Amino acid sequence: MMTTDLQTLMTDLGQRARAAARVLAQTPDAAKSKALRAAAQAIRIDARHIIAANAKDMEAGEAKGLSKALLDRLMLNPARVEAMAKGLEEIARLPDPVGRTLADWTRPNGLAIARVAVPLGVIGIIYESRPNVTADAAGLCLKSGNAAILRGGSESYHSSQAIMTALVGGITACGLPADAVQMVPTTDREAVGAMLRLSDYIDVIVPRGGKSLVARVVEESRIPLFQHLEGICHTYVDGAADLVMAKTVVLNAKMRRTGVCGATETLLVDRACAATHLAPLVTMLLEAGCEVRGDEAAQAVDARVVAASDEDWSTEYLDSIISVKLVDGVAAAVEHINRFGSHHTEAIITGDADAAQTFLNGCDSAIVLWNASTQFADGGEFGMGAEIGISTGKLHARGPVGVEQLCTFKYVVTGSGQVRPG
Amino acid sequence: MMTTDLQTLMTDLGQRARAAARVLAQTPDAAKSKALRAAAQAIRIDARHIIAANAKDMEAGEAKGLSKALLDRLMLNPARVEAMAKGLEEIARLPDPVGRTLADWTRPNGLAIARVAVPLGVIGIIYESRPNVTADAAGLCLKSGNAAILRGGSESYHSSQAIMTALVGGITACGLPADAVQMVPTTDREAVGAMLRLSDYIDVIVPRGGKSLVARVVEESRIPLFQHLEGICHTYVDGAADLVMAKTVVLNAKMRRTGVCGATETLLVDRACAATHLAPLVTMLLEAGCEVRGDEAAQAVDARVVAASDEDWSTEYLDSIISVKLVDGVAAAVEHINRFGSHHTEAIITGDADAAQTFLNGCDSAIVLWNASTQFADGGEFGMGAEIGISTGKLHARGPVGVEQLCTFKYVVTGSGQVRPG
Repeated sequence: MMTTDLQTLMTDLGQRARAAARVLAQTPDAAKSKALRAAAQAIRIDARHIIAANAKDMEAGEAKGLSKALLDRLMLNPARVEAMAKGLEEIARLPDPVGRTLADWTRPNGLAIARVAVPLGVIGIIYESRPNVTADAAGLCLKSGNAAILRGGSESYHSSQAIMTALVGGITACGLPADAVQMVPTTDREAVGAMLRLSDYIDVIVPRGGKSLVARVVEESRIPLFQHLEGICHTYVDGAADLVMAKTVVLNAKMRRTGVCGATETLLVDRACAATHLAPLVTMLLEAGCEVRGDEAAQAVDARVVAASDEDWSTEYLDSIISVKLVDGVAAAVEHINRFGSHHTEAIITGDADAAQTFLNGCDSAIVLWNASTQFADGGEFGMGAEIGISTGKLHARGPVGVEQLCTFKYVVTGSGQVRPG
Repeated sequence: MMTTDLQTLMTDLGQRARAAARVLAQTPDAAKSKALRAAAQAIRIDARHIIAANAKDMEAGEAKGLSKALLDRLMLNPARVEAMAKGLEEIARLPDPVGRTLADWTRPNGLAIARVAVPLGVIGIIYESRPNVTADAAGLCLKSGNAAILRGGSESYHSSQAIMTALVGGITACGLPADAVQMVPTTDREAVGAMLRLSDYIDVIVPRGGKSLVARVVEESRIPLFQHLEGICHTYVDGAADLVMAKTVVLNAKMRRTGVCGATETLLVDRACAATHLAPLVTMLLEAGCEVRGDEAAQAVDARVVAASDEDWSTEYLDSIISVKLVDGVAAAVEHINRFGSHHTEAIITGDADAAQTFLNGCDSAIVLWNASTQFADGGEFGMGAEIGISTGKLHARGPVGVEQLCTFKYVVTGSGQVRPG
């Protein structure tokens, strides 16, 4: 497609989204929730059609030689389609994030000031192969009164289109605007560039995908981002850690699921407890099938431990691999984490409240835990409901991004004719 | 200076700021406030030196042919220097924005979750001619536990340097890091570009200046912004408005100070009350010395009313000029405002609560007022203390940006060995 045509197409999408957003912002929660339940039902009714569309994507993916892991992410079956529908119903049940009074106070001159939650407006989501993001993201945006512009990966194009058709059918049947959720109708790579320039029509971009996608979005976007870079998460076992607790938590933090962003990638052990704690921890990990890449101390524990390179300290494995290092106490742990980490999630295991405070205050990360697994880094586990991602940025949303984080606020000031003196 | 040298210089500045930020984040409020009071005292002691440095800037400004308005912004006298010192003391007295528990809850599994306010980290402020921004911005950043990198305008270079010397003297005398506040040590325009690429070391950029400065920053920055574009603020006089109140509020909203961003630039009058309200409002404005640019109805009131062009509806005059237009009720007022405004501040004057709700909900602006002057758009008037600007963006900070808005948060999770099941 010609670049000018693309920009025209995308601007049209943006203008429609803005118009729909004005309607959604004033739509009561009951109507939004009803539309979400109708969308869920439409997805159930269209399940066969969605799975048939997915088969086309799977066939093309296999022909293209996608990895087994990518093909698994792409694949839809009846259980996964049902999970999508259930997800929308769960979002429908969340409390309305719009209209909450976040703070209110009265000034000496009688002005009543309230900070009230309102939708952000239009949210652009750029994602890769998982077709379920289509339903999840659309649902979270709708519940929070935002219009959504989705740009899925080319691998999942047919699947996402089929899901969209069902979604929009459900939404419009309930009288909400068809443009509440739109999908970029081309797999042209240039469309992403055009989308990232729509700062008049899109209020925030959420990139959900691998490093190269996120890097491109960061470089090209003229629109603010909810940025999830990567989760280089740490667990620090302090000198005052109970060994049994440390073993239980570290095993879970690394091995429960290795592909999630809250999985621990580096284990730091306090030199003060190295003699008692290091060998049991390393042995436990090896026996659980985890590759261990360690510093000299860790290598001395077991011949299966391989030498960690400098790169290991800043690598998100998303796999059964962990890097292990001795540090000189909590201050050194904090320094390592702030230097090599990605400001995502870090845990300390200790019985020493002072060491815990130093760690919790010192780590410049979205989530810091004391005596708990880093795998709790999840909106659902926080009690926030479904999330659109976990932000490692510091502005607006940090940590899990759920429906409340998809809102901004306005100041509503009520007077009786006040004027400003002076 | 060579571009590579500049980038090296700016990276060094960024690294120093990051190191200072780590210290400031852990500095108790008493120490920050003491340093602010010491900085205020140092400014008083250095007043002569600061005014002498300002004289150099004034001389260069006059030679350069700066406008009278710009020269007035640039000028420092003993009263203005004292105001700067007092401003720092006021900031010192604000409650500590860091460490506030913004929310906390306990999960069924016993995990205690708290959302705790923490400093953003490093804040870059790019501003133009007002030298007092040097002290104000440094003070707000310090109080909120952030390191600051200031880039002042070349016109105020000597003044800002002299203020910085005093500030840093006060801060370091109290044992806080000298790099807590740094100033870009060159007036080279390219330094701004280099600064805007320091995304590893600067967490947010605050541009404070005219349209061309802000436009450049928006285009070039790879760092999130607190963006204050412009204040195209509206006052809408509804059909159910009391005429006396409407006159009082409109006069204040336009004429109290015409150069502030909360000044009303467009008056919208409901056609339903045009017969009774339009002429008195227009006549009042003309008699107060305000130029009126109106639609046909407004022109019919008085021969002195000139015809408004299309451009007038989206112009921030910052002067004794107002555009005036009849609209068909509150819905049309909202539509006009969302189309032509800058999402800053809008007011409705009405005795009709339903019309007020429609207006307050419908205007997509940071601040919406009912029966009060738009000139209340100010952090001090909101009771938030000094502000670094008013954000027209929707993310993180919207409206006045004070010390609380210069904070982000982290989730602090306390457990007793919990692991995530499944």
